[in-house]
Amino acid sequence: MPTSRPEIDPERLRALLAGFNAFGRSSETGGYDRIGYSAADMAVRAWFMAEMERDGLGVRMDAVGNVFGRYGPAEGPVLLVGSHLDTVPDGGAFDGALGVAVALECVRAMKAAGFQPRTAIEVVATAEEEGRFGGMLGSQAIAGVVPPGWVEAAADADGVRLVDALRGCGLDPARVPAAARSARDIVAFLELHIEQGPILEMEGRPVGIVTGISGMGSLAVSLEGVANHSGTTPMDMRSDAFAGLAEIAAGFPALIRAHGTDQTRLTIGKVELKPNFIHTIPGLADFTIILRDTDEAVMRLMEEELGELIADVADKHRLKARVEVRSWLSPVSLDAGLNRLLHDCARDLGLDARSMPSGAGHDAQTMQGLCPSALIFVPSRGGISHAPQEWTDEEDCVTGARLMLEALVRLSVETLAG
Amino acid sequence: MPTSRPEIDPERLRALLAGFNAFGRSSETGGYDRIGYSAADMAVRAWFMAEMERDGLGVRMDAVGNVFGRYGPAEGPVLLVGSHLDTVPDGGAFDGALGVAVALECVRAMKAAGFQPRTAIEVVATAEEEGRFGGMLGSQAIAGVVPPGWVEAAADADGVRLVDALRGCGLDPARVPAAARSARDIVAFLELHIEQGPILEMEGRPVGIVTGISGMGSLAVSLEGVANHSGTTPMDMRSDAFAGLAEIAAGFPALIRAHGTDQTRLTIGKVELKPNFIHTIPGLADFTIILRDTDEAVMRLMEEELGELIADVADKHRLKARVEVRSWLSPVSLDAGLNRLLHDCARDLGLDARSMPSGAGHDAQTMQGLCPSALIFVPSRGGISHAPQEWTDEEDCVTGARLMLEALVRLSVETLAG
Repeated sequence: MPTSRPEIDPERLRALLAGFNAFGRSSETGGYDRIGYSAADMAVRAWFMAEMERDGLGVRMDAVGNVFGRYGPAEGPVLLVGSHLDTVPDGGAFDGALGVAVALECVRAMKAAGFQPRTAIEVVATAEEEGRFGGMLGSQAIAGVVPPGWVEAAADADGVRLVDALRGCGLDPARVPAAARSARDIVAFLELHIEQGPILEMEGRPVGIVTGISGMGSLAVSLEGVANHSGTTPMDMRSDAFAGLAEIAAGFPALIRAHGTDQTRLTIGKVELKPNFIHTIPGLADFTIILRDTDEAVMRLMEEELGELIADVADKHRLKARVEVRSWLSPVSLDAGLNRLLHDCARDLGLDARSMPSGAGHDAQTMQGLCPSALIFVPSRGGISHAPQEWTDEEDCVTGARLMLEALVRLSVETLAG
Repeated sequence: MPTSRPEIDPERLRALLAGFNAFGRSSETGGYDRIGYSAADMAVRAWFMAEMERDGLGVRMDAVGNVFGRYGPAEGPVLLVGSHLDTVPDGGAFDGALGVAVALECVRAMKAAGFQPRTAIEVVATAEEEGRFGGMLGSQAIAGVVPPGWVEAAADADGVRLVDALRGCGLDPARVPAAARSARDIVAFLELHIEQGPILEMEGRPVGIVTGISGMGSLAVSLEGVANHSGTTPMDMRSDAFAGLAEIAAGFPALIRAHGTDQTRLTIGKVELKPNFIHTIPGLADFTIILRDTDEAVMRLMEEELGELIADVADKHRLKARVEVRSWLSPVSLDAGLNRLLHDCARDLGLDARSMPSGAGHDAQTMQGLCPSALIFVPSRGGISHAPQEWTDEEDCVTGARLMLEALVRLSVETLAG
C-alpha cells in the first residue's frame, strides 16, 4: 500500500462530530444531554462502535462502558488516545466529543495514507467523565483507582444508584475491577479537549499544551443564625446568615491577593437560604466554596485562611459555622516528556502553542497515575462551556487535530524505535 | 346590675387564645397554619363568631371576612379593638391571635363587672393581614383604601387568584367596597400585638406604646453576569453575579453608618442564583432588598444610595444590574392623643411603658388613615416571630390586656362625656 503523509480531513472530522451530536440534542435549548449511562449516552457508544467496526478497528466495550477501537499491531502495548462522550445536562457540542472525534480522525488519516504504526493506537471514548455519580468512573476504572466500595455506594443527585444505572445498561458492577489496564499495556495517553476558558481566544493562539491540572477542594459551609422579622430586629442584634455569607464572599479578593497565586480560583456557585423569604432575615445559609490552584501548598494555605475568615465573620455576626471538606483532589503534573514532544510537533507545524495549566478536571489527570499522559487544548469562544453556547471554530478543531496526529505519528514510530 | 372595677381574668384569656390555636396547628413543627382564606382561617372565624354570640354580642362578618362583635349601645360610633386571626405559614401562637383574644377578654371583663360603655366597643378579628395576596385586605377594606382593580388582579405565590379564594369562602368579591366604614362610625382603633423584636425583653419592660410604623420599600434586584466553569475562568475575567451580590450586601453596614439612622433596616431575605451549581460561576443573581426606616426622607436617601452602590459594584464585576421598586409604603405616625392616653393609663397602672416605633407593618397603620389609632406591644421572647418558637409569657399577655382594658374603659366613657 502506497504511503503518504497522513493528513486530517476537515470534512470527515466535522461529519464524525456531527454524528456524535445527533445523540441527545435538545431542540428546545440547542444543548446536548448525554448524561453518563443515559439512553443517549449508550446509544452514541453503540453508534461509535459500529463506525469503528466499519473502519476495520478491533472494537470492544469494557465493564464500565469505555469504548475502544484498536488500529495497528494486534499485540503489544498501545498509545491510548481519546476523550469522553458523555455530557453534562444541557451541555455543549464539543466538550468530550471533539477529543473522541479527533482521535478516530487521526487513525482514519493514518489508514487513508497507508501509515502503519509500529505501536498500536487505541482510540478510547471514556464513560461517565462529567461526574453524574461524583467521580470520573471511566478513566478511574482503566487506571484501577476506583476506591473500594465506591461503586456500591455511589448515587446521583436524584438518588439513582450507580449499580442500578450500570445494570440498566447491561454492565455488571462486579466486573468493574476487570476494566483496569496494566501500566505495561499503555505507552501513553493523549487527549484533546476544548479549553473551557478564555485564555487561548484572548491571546489569539490556536492550541495550548497543558502542563498540569489544578487541584480542587470542595468545602461545604453552613452558617446558622436566627431567622427573624426584617422590620423588628435592629441591625446590631441580628444573626443574619446571609449577611455573614456576603462578608465571607466579599473577602475572597483580599484573601487571594494575600495568600494565593494567579492560578487560585475561589467560587461560590451554590447557595441555599432558609427560609428564603423576602421579609425574613435568613436563619440558615448553606453554600459551597470550590477552591482550586495548581500548587498543593497554596491550596492548603488557602483552606486554612478560609477557615479563619469564616470563623471571624461567624463570630462577628453571632453565627454558628460548620465547614466540611467534601472532596480534595491534589494538583496533577502531566508528563514532561510528552509536553516537550508536543511543543516540538507544534513548532514544526508552525503553531503558536502556549503552555498552560488546566483549571478543569480531565481524564488525563487520572490516566497520568497509570501512564505518561498529555492534554491538548483548543480555544473556547468566550471561554464558555457546559452550556449550549459552547463553541470552537472548525479551523481550531482541525489545527488541534493536526497537532495530535503529528504527535501520534512520531510516538507510534519512536517508542518502538527508541 | 352591681358594677365593680373590670378586671382581666388570666385563665379566661388563656383559654380563649388556646381556643384560637386549636385551629391550624401543625403537630410536626408545633407552628400554626391559618393562612388567609384557608379552611383553618375560616373555621377559626366561625368558632370566634359563635363564642361572641354566646357572650351576647352583636356579631357579623363583612365582605372580606373581617369578624365583628359589638358590645354596648346598638347605635352610634364605636371603639374598634382587635387584631388579626390569620397567620403566616408555620407561624406562632401569638402573632395576631393574642390581640383578638385581648380585645374580647376586655369586653368579657367589662360584662363581668357590669360595666356598660357609653360608646359601644366593637371587637374585630381582621382578615388577611399577613399578606398572602400582598396587602392587608381586611383593614384596607374597612378603611376603604383597597386600590381599584387590585382585588381582581391579586394572586398568591402559588397563582391562586384572590377572587377565587374569596368565592371559595362564600365571600363575594364584588361586595368588597361595602366593607368600608365611615370615619364618623369609628372613634378610634386600638390594637395589641406582640413586638416581634427584642427591645422590650432586652430592656425588661412589660409594654411598648407605638409611636409610628416604619415605612418599607421592597427592591427587586437582578444581576446578570456570565455562567462559566469555576476552574477555567480566571478571577479577573469573571462576570460573577454572586460575587457582585456579596459585595453589595457587605456594603450595607457602611451605607447605614453614612446615611441611615438607628431605625434603618436593610435585609436581603431571598436569593435565587442560576444555575446554582457548585462548579459553575453564577450567571444570574435575583434578590430582594427590604428597606425600612421611620423617616421617609431617610428612606428616599437610602434608596438612592443603594442604587449607586449596586451600579458601582455591577460595573466593577461586569454585570448588568436591574433594580425595580416593587412596593413603597411610607412611614405612618399613630395618633398622638391616644399615645398620651395610653402612657397615662400605663403610669396609673404602675407599668414601665416605652415609646417605640414598629418595624413591622400592622392593621393599625392602615386604620390610622381612617381614624385615630393606637398600638400596644408586649414582649417577644428572643425577638422571634413568624416561627413556631414565637413566645410571650402569660404575665406579659395579661399586663398588656390590663393596659388595653384601662384605655377602653376611659375612652368609652370619656369620648361621650367629653
